[in-house]
Amino acid sequence: MRPIDALVNSLPDARVLTDPDVIDSYARDRTFLEPGKPLGVVLAASRDDVVTTLRWASEHRVPVVPRGAGTGLAGASVAGDGAVILSLHKMTAIRELSPADEIAVVEPGVITADLDRAAREHGLMYAPDPSSYEISTIGGNLATNAGGLRCVKYGVTRDSALGLEVVLADGRILNTGRRTMKGVTGYDLTGLFVGSEGTLGVITAATVRLRRAPAAPPATFAAEFGSLRDAGAAVSAIMAAGCQPSLMELLDRASLEAIDDWRNIGLEATTQAMLIGQSDATDGQATAERMERICMENGASFVAVSSSPQETEELIGLRRMAYQAKERLGACLVEDVCVPRSVLPDMITAIEAAAARHGVKICTVAHAGDGNLHPVFIFEHGMVEPPPEVWAAADEVFTHALELGGTLTGEHGVGLLKQRWLAMESGPVAAEVQRGIKAVFDPLGILNPGKAI
Amino acid sequence: MRPIDALVNSLPDARVLTDPDVIDSYARDRTFLEPGKPLGVVLAASRDDVVTTLRWASEHRVPVVPRGAGTGLAGASVAGDGAVILSLHKMTAIRELSPADEIAVVEPGVITADLDRAAREHGLMYAPDPSSYEISTIGGNLATNAGGLRCVKYGVTRDSALGLEVVLADGRILNTGRRTMKGVTGYDLTGLFVGSEGTLGVITAATVRLRRAPAAPPATFAAEFGSLRDAGAAVSAIMAAGCQPSLMELLDRASLEAIDDWRNIGLEATTQAMLIGQSDATDGQATAERMERICMENGASFVAVSSSPQETEELIGLRRMAYQAKERLGACLVEDVCVPRSVLPDMITAIEAAAARHGVKICTVAHAGDGNLHPVFIFEHGMVEPPPEVWAAADEVFTHALELGGTLTGEHGVGLLKQRWLAMESGPVAAEVQRGIKAVFDPLGILNPGKAI
Repeated sequence: MRPIDALVNSLPDARVLTDPDVIDSYARDRTFLEPGKPLGVVLAASRDDVVTTLRWASEHRVPVVPRGAGTGLAGASVAGDGAVILSLHKMTAIRELSPADEIAVVEPGVITADLDRAAREHGLMYAPDPSSYEISTIGGNLATNAGGLRCVKYGVTRDSALGLEVVLADGRILNTGRRTMKGVTGYDLTGLFVGSEGTLGVITAATVRLRRAPAAPPATFAAEFGSLRDAGAAVSAIMAAGCQPSLMELLDRASLEAIDDWRNIGLEATTQAMLIGQSDATDGQATAERMERICMENGASFVAVSSSPQETEELIGLRRMAYQAKERLGACLVEDVCVPRSVLPDMITAIEAAAARHGVKICTVAHAGDGNLHPVFIFEHGMVEPPPEVWAAADEVFTHALELGGTLTGEHGVGLLKQRWLAMESGPVAAEVQRGIKAVFDPLGILNPGKAI
Repeated sequence: MRPIDALVNSLPDARVLTDPDVIDSYARDRTFLEPGKPLGVVLAASRDDVVTTLRWASEHRVPVVPRGAGTGLAGASVAGDGAVILSLHKMTAIRELSPADEIAVVEPGVITADLDRAAREHGLMYAPDPSSYEISTIGGNLATNAGGLRCVKYGVTRDSALGLEVVLADGRILNTGRRTMKGVTGYDLTGLFVGSEGTLGVITAATVRLRRAPAAPPATFAAEFGSLRDAGAAVSAIMAAGCQPSLMELLDRASLEAIDDWRNIGLEATTQAMLIGQSDATDGQATAERMERICMENGASFVAVSSSPQETEELIGLRRMAYQAKERLGACLVEDVCVPRSVLPDMITAIEAAAARHGVKICTVAHAGDGNLHPVFIFEHGMVEPPPEVWAAADEVFTHALELGGTLTGEHGVGLLKQRWLAMESGPVAAEVQRGIKAVFDPLGILNPGKAI
């Protein structure tokens, strides 16, 4: 009997898929990376299914690639030869939602926006909102420590994770963290699992923090600038003024052109950058107007505060369509550097220089309030991987980000995609202790090998 | 040559103290716990001193007890026989303070309130404010993941820690984290070190997040209640109304009596609890008045919003004098349970029941907005350790906290004091993986043995 047959026999009917075409569709994420030939896909419906799968994998030394909705942008859930894919997307129960304690206990397959909607029925919100939040899962968000648009005010996924139920590689159950707002018993195992890309264990439930939802819809402004540097200065000035935006997004000329090309937004010839910001504070309208004034003082050529929900939706829609607009131009290598906010303009300048030097089209959007930029490197549709000039430009961008005191990845994770630059940031001591931690949880090395660290 | 002489010889002059009386004064924290007989005290002035000390300690297998200002309340810096105490309190440089990036790079001996004051010169603040913040150090705050009064709004020390420079047990330097607001390269080593009580490495520098300071002083209210349950309900209602207080403290009757006994505050016979709250929002005065109304609706017998800075100072002073007032009553075992906010009244009831059943005086103050209670068990001055009835009452309090979904320690840490209850909360799997993590960083077990995990 093949090992996979033993797994099929030990799980309830129809939990394991072995059709090669079906496997292939579960072996990818949203990167261009080509998967190998995994053995099968487990559609876990319960913690028990996860335990069974991991015990089997330990016994047979089979690599396990955990997976949520496969919306990752770094290859963390791309599966290799001989692996078993462990999909958690069918574990969709919101086990508990306590308005009084402002917490929820959820299974990993819950769609992020669904949790947010469930919370809003009680006047609460689940704050982390990666752009993918209508299709990505809490489990995937936890595995990558996903960021999002609102995290400029509310923090990243880790900041909302209070406790986890995790199945370890050998099938043991580990409960981390707590249901309380504070707690310091022992090491921060919850924080360690968040962002570990499925390399330390498989999350089967999470206790997450909810927050009071703002009473009114956010107030929104948009500003156009004749130079990126002015836009960057406006961001710094807005943050320094204590405006505390709940969203602060920057689009560069190349991104705006891609959108204009697709949807004809009447882009002015002189516009080099657009800034879109929101405030969801009780005095949001006044704050948005204050941010508008600061943009004018910093050289904006045009500024408007949205006067209606429809107009707001259009402005945010502009930002949301940025990625799709780029996909029309070609295949995309989406990057994710993050720098200290004060050097955001320098980072943008460095990206433009890299694009020019290597003859590569790069469109950049940024969660500007966080200094987190997504330069998207465009290459020809149908190419299996980016051509050398794209890698060279990406290399230059990463090197500059680190020189400016930044990081390779603000919110997408390392996965497979950033392995080649990882050592440059982490250094040998951090790499060694991380391998040591990995070995504590997964001594056989079966959990998502080759990812994250 | 004794091992300690080799250390004296390898460090600059006067770095090592070996006078037994002096050693004893460095071997204690603010608990009643009696230290052993350590070999000496290193007054580290630089990272190099820390490296030298740890290399020597590894070579000679000498336990090292790192220490900030010794204000801990769980015994984490109480030193045992044959240990070397490594005091970081002379490393007081603020290496960098960047208003534009809202970060500071500080050495571990910086007094927490000094960093806050330095930040305020630039319109910023360092948010974590343990009650000890005028005398405790950033290093000690990081080692214990200290909370404080403002953390109901701004989070605990971990939420402000972006990156660390750490000397490992063998003298290697590990840099964790980053200077950016977001970042997901590798495992969260920064979060792992925060709260690890010096058992994984010695922090020699930290990059911390600063925040915009509120434009105006906070608005403050105080409310008196005839029942603790009403006070607890008011806390829940205030949080549920989205008031987002920047401080929300509860004092029980026993605490108020101790203060009244000392300072004659005119305590009414019917007052069972007092709530003190603040809002530092731009609409703080209106929010304080809203919280005042909610207290009235929840049965407060008296409520007032402070009309002057002096009055505010008096109200907050009441809270600050709670611990000293208790120390007049006897020796103190200070505990630190944290429960989900909705069961705060149940927890207070359980504390009162334990006090009555075991005939022990317990005074409780709480960071009520976080569900974090400090029941202080009073016993006779001069006793070396708490009598059996105090331990029995404490045991009952801890058991109830866990039954209510809470934790043994919200912000003080495990240290030595909570070792006897630790297994009840963590369970065997978490204990085992924590020992595994400890062994990765400190295979010889020389770093603060017997603490934290």
